[in-house]
Amino acid sequence: MQKVEHIGIAVKSLTSSMPLFEKLLKNKCYKTETVESEQVNTAFFLKDKTKIELLESTDPDGVIARFIEKRGEGIHHIAFEVNNIAEEMTRLRNDGFILLNNEPKRGADNKLVCFIHPKSTNGILIEICQEIR
Amino acid sequence: MQKVEHIGIAVKSLTSSMPLFEKLLKNKCYKTETVESEQVNTAFFLKDKTKIELLESTDPDGVIARFIEKRGEGIHHIAFEVNNIAEEMTRLRNDGFILLNNEPKRGADNKLVCFIHPKSTNGILIEICQEIR
Repeated sequence: MQKVEHIGIAVKSLTSSMPLFEKLLKNKCYKTETVESEQVNTAFFLKDKTKIELLESTDPDGVIARFIEKRGEGIHHIAFEVNNIAEEMTRLRNDGFILLNNEPKRGADNKLVCFIHPKSTNGILIEICQEIR
Repeated sequence: MQKVEHIGIAVKSLTSSMPLFEKLLKNKCYKTETVESEQVNTAFFLKDKTKIELLESTDPDGVIARFIEKRGEGIHHIAFEVNNIAEEMTRLRNDGFILLNNEPKRGADNKLVCFIHPKSTNGILIEICQEIR
């Protein structure tokens, strides 16, 4: 794992949270993107080398909608950048971490991603991601 | 706000979580520190320019113990580095954010810190911190 690539934040509405984060971070959102496979609209902010990714559900039964229903708005996951996602998935599996997908899948922001079950990581949903080259 | 300085993670026990994070991040903990005023033991990991700060309560009624009781182990706060904490506190207050302390206070890792109430930041506890020079 190279660095914290982004922090994912579950929000009810990008319309109200984008101006809030622009004010908080004193930074403009530089990109929005819909990821249909994940049922989310995303909005990205950059602070130095770390991104803040706001996540709004496009579906009342989607992962983010259910997260907010259960825990309220807030931090959803931390994503670490890796150079080789397949190798890192093998390493993590061998080290006893529980992966939520067997193969890397396509995420937002031109990335291949894999999630680690919070049960094996002190309650934190961790994503590893690799830029698609 | 300059960058994500660290991510604070509430854990029940450093004894069990330190080896877990060493394995996950493939990185050794480089420092532990007790902050008596906050009733926490902390352990730091560095990934590129962002720190991961594990927080263990030293008191069953401390902030971290109560957080875990309510929400379980997991991400407790995100900290952003600022150049001038007094100026940034004034700016945030003027922009309608609710600060949890009126004056900067001494935190871990040689920092002056101030927290922003999650009520004004989409459910996320945000810290701003400035290196003590």
